[in-house]
Amino acid sequence: MTDNKVGSSHDTAGTRPLTLLGLGAMGAALGHAWLAAGYPLTVWNRTPGRAEPLAAQGAQVAGTAAEAVAANRLVVVCLLNDDTLGETLDGVDLAGKDLVNLTTSTPGQARVRAEWARERGARFLDGGIMAVPPMIGAPGSGASVFYSGSRALFDAHAEALAVPAGTAYVGEDPGFAALHDVALLSAMYGMFAGVAHAFALIRKEEIPPKDFAPLLSGWLTAMTSSVHQAAAQLESGDYTKNVVSNLAMQVAGSETLLGTAEEQGVSAELLTPYLALMERRLAEGHGDEDTTGLIDLLVRRTGR
Amino acid sequence: MTDNKVGSSHDTAGTRPLTLLGLGAMGAALGHAWLAAGYPLTVWNRTPGRAEPLAAQGAQVAGTAAEAVAANRLVVVCLLNDDTLGETLDGVDLAGKDLVNLTTSTPGQARVRAEWARERGARFLDGGIMAVPPMIGAPGSGASVFYSGSRALFDAHAEALAVPAGTAYVGEDPGFAALHDVALLSAMYGMFAGVAHAFALIRKEEIPPKDFAPLLSGWLTAMTSSVHQAAAQLESGDYTKNVVSNLAMQVAGSETLLGTAEEQGVSAELLTPYLALMERRLAEGHGDEDTTGLIDLLVRRTGR
Ligand SMILES: NC(=O)c1ccc[n+]([C@@H]2O[C@H](COP(=O)([O-])OP(=O)(O)OC[C@H]3O[C@@H](n4cnc5c(N)ncnc54)[C@H](OP(=O)(O)O)[C@@H]3O)[C@@H](O)[C@H]2O)c1
Ligand SMILES: NC(=O)c1ccc[n+]([C@@H]2O[C@H](COP(=O)([O-])OP(=O)(O)OC[C@H]3O[C@@H](n4cnc5c(N)ncnc54)[C@H](OP(=O)(O)O)[C@@H]3O)[C@@H](O)[C@H]2O)c1
Repeated sequence: MTDNKVGSSHDTAGTRPLTLLGLGAMGAALGHAWLAAGYPLTVWNRTPGRAEPLAAQGAQVAGTAAEAVAANRLVVVCLLNDDTLGETLDGVDLAGKDLVNLTTSTPGQARVRAEWARERGARFLDGGIMAVPPMIGAPGSGASVFYSGSRALFDAHAEALAVPAGTAYVGEDPGFAALHDVALLSAMYGMFAGVAHAFALIRKEEIPPKDFAPLLSGWLTAMTSSVHQAAAQLESGDYTKNVVSNLAMQVAGSETLLGTAEEQGVSAELLTPYLALMERRLAEGHGDEDTTGLIDLLVRRTGR
Repeated sequence: MTDNKVGSSHDTAGTRPLTLLGLGAMGAALGHAWLAAGYPLTVWNRTPGRAEPLAAQGAQVAGTAAEAVAANRLVVVCLLNDDTLGETLDGVDLAGKDLVNLTTSTPGQARVRAEWARERGARFLDGGIMAVPPMIGAPGSGASVFYSGSRALFDAHAEALAVPAGTAYVGEDPGFAALHDVALLSAMYGMFAGVAHAFALIRKEEIPPKDFAPLLSGWLTAMTSSVHQAAAQLESGDYTKNVVSNLAMQVAGSETLLGTAEEQGVSAELLTPYLALMERRLAEGHGDEDTTGLIDLLVRRTGR
């Protein structure tokens, strides 16, 4: 291990040392945030050169993943994917460790990984990062991390975990952080698809995108209220309550949406799956609902 | 015409009389808003019974569309669709009239209708209503109407037009109001699709929808900033500028999105068209862009 005085000079009360495995774009941002906050940090990366900027700021650089893990109780991992994490920690002694996994994974992978960690004597917390690297360690950037798994681990390291980004603990089920992460990202791609279609519609017209943008973002922001409406309907089980625009009307209106796309020479490929789903729900006799019932059409029925 | 004193008693300075054709859910809401604001109102509806609540509040009820049109210079139409409007006004004298069409139509229909009105000696303004009936005439509801076409007409009746909802004039091209309307609605359906997928992912888990809703709506609101990023890139023509998460990374991440849907037993039909479009753009060599380039993939190339 490289000897580095800066790290230990910051070893004051409240800033307990930690280890970070993985110094890609995200790992490096995390590392810089902890160093800037005065946390003694031991790092490891497969390609050693990527540790240099952190070493210059006071990080201890470990020669192997096992050495890095041995250095501290709190071990944060931010590698490419779950397979990479498995390879990297294969055979490494994890007994008594607090393992925080910020590597993106599916809920299922996180659940399996939690069991794997438990078998090796480690507490396990999974995290889903809702941010890009420039937002890390920048107060007010809106960066946040969903955490799930060991509540005891989360509480024991709450301060350190809050350094790079806001934290939100979403449950003991180790899959829940990944599930929240993926659900939000998926919803974002839906919105991006709608935004792409909207800009495509005005692409050949003399409407400056910068004049159109505030109208579009203001409208979408206002329409996020539908999320609360859907939640209330899902909890009550009554999808016809407080309906302001029923499916029958909305399906009738889709003719204008498709006609406009056609006129403007825009492919409706991003729009049609949702319109088709509305038609399906309507055909099943739910014309008096709004769109909440579509959610159930997406969920595969289990053999009951 | 029914004789009704209340209408004329409100005929004070600044509240010039107007005519409204079509008293469906939306037309009735508009009518009530003008009456409540003291505007003398003449109404007509195919099914006469629907005029009664407005008559009780002081509206003049015309026996035919032609009579209603003859009564006032400003004529607002809110019928089912453009065909219905054509049938209703077929043979009616429109010379010297200011025709405001709040019937939903495509940009192409609005352009044809504007020319049709011009040939009949009327000024024409098309409107796209961004609201549902309960929001009409309710200050602070966020209701708004896009207008395009005759600026002179819009200015002459600015006060009356501002009564039911906020107004936004978006250009002389009579198709622009409909285009803005449809573009925003289309974007909303994209967002709804994303929201449906997100709720479907957590449907079978012990995550209360009401706990999840604020996380989801907060995240989507934050992500509307992408609209401004896309606009700036479209105007500069440089889709690689200020990229925080490039296509290559995003396409790699889609594996986790699809894997999670699979694990949760959720159909990815609302997500796959967008992911496929990202892959297509990446395959065309644009891995260093973010998602703005997808807009161009949607716009059909004209034969140039
Ligand atoms: N960047 C973002 O915007 C973002 C946002 C949210 C979440 N995340 C998640 O954060 C994690 C890291 O992302 P990143 O952006 O830092 O990715 P990255 O820049 O591509 O870095 C990947 C990291 O994984 C390491 N790695 C890859 N294959 C390995 C192997 N076989 N054995 C050991 N190490 C290996 C790399 O080491 P080398 O340096 O040796 O290649 C590097 O440290 C991912 O799970 C990602 O999904 C990223
Ligand atoms: N409701 C909304 O949430 C909403 C939101 C934005 C925009 N809009 C637009 O507003 C317009 C009116 O919508 P709405 O909700 O009021 O619809 P609606 O409740 O279905 O009313 C339709 C109106 O059109 C009339 N009509 C239908 N066919 C006709 C015909 N052949 N000849 C003459 N009149 C005919 C109806 O008269 P009868 O009473 O005789 O049937 C009624 O006045 C539509 O273009 C709609 O897209 C509505």
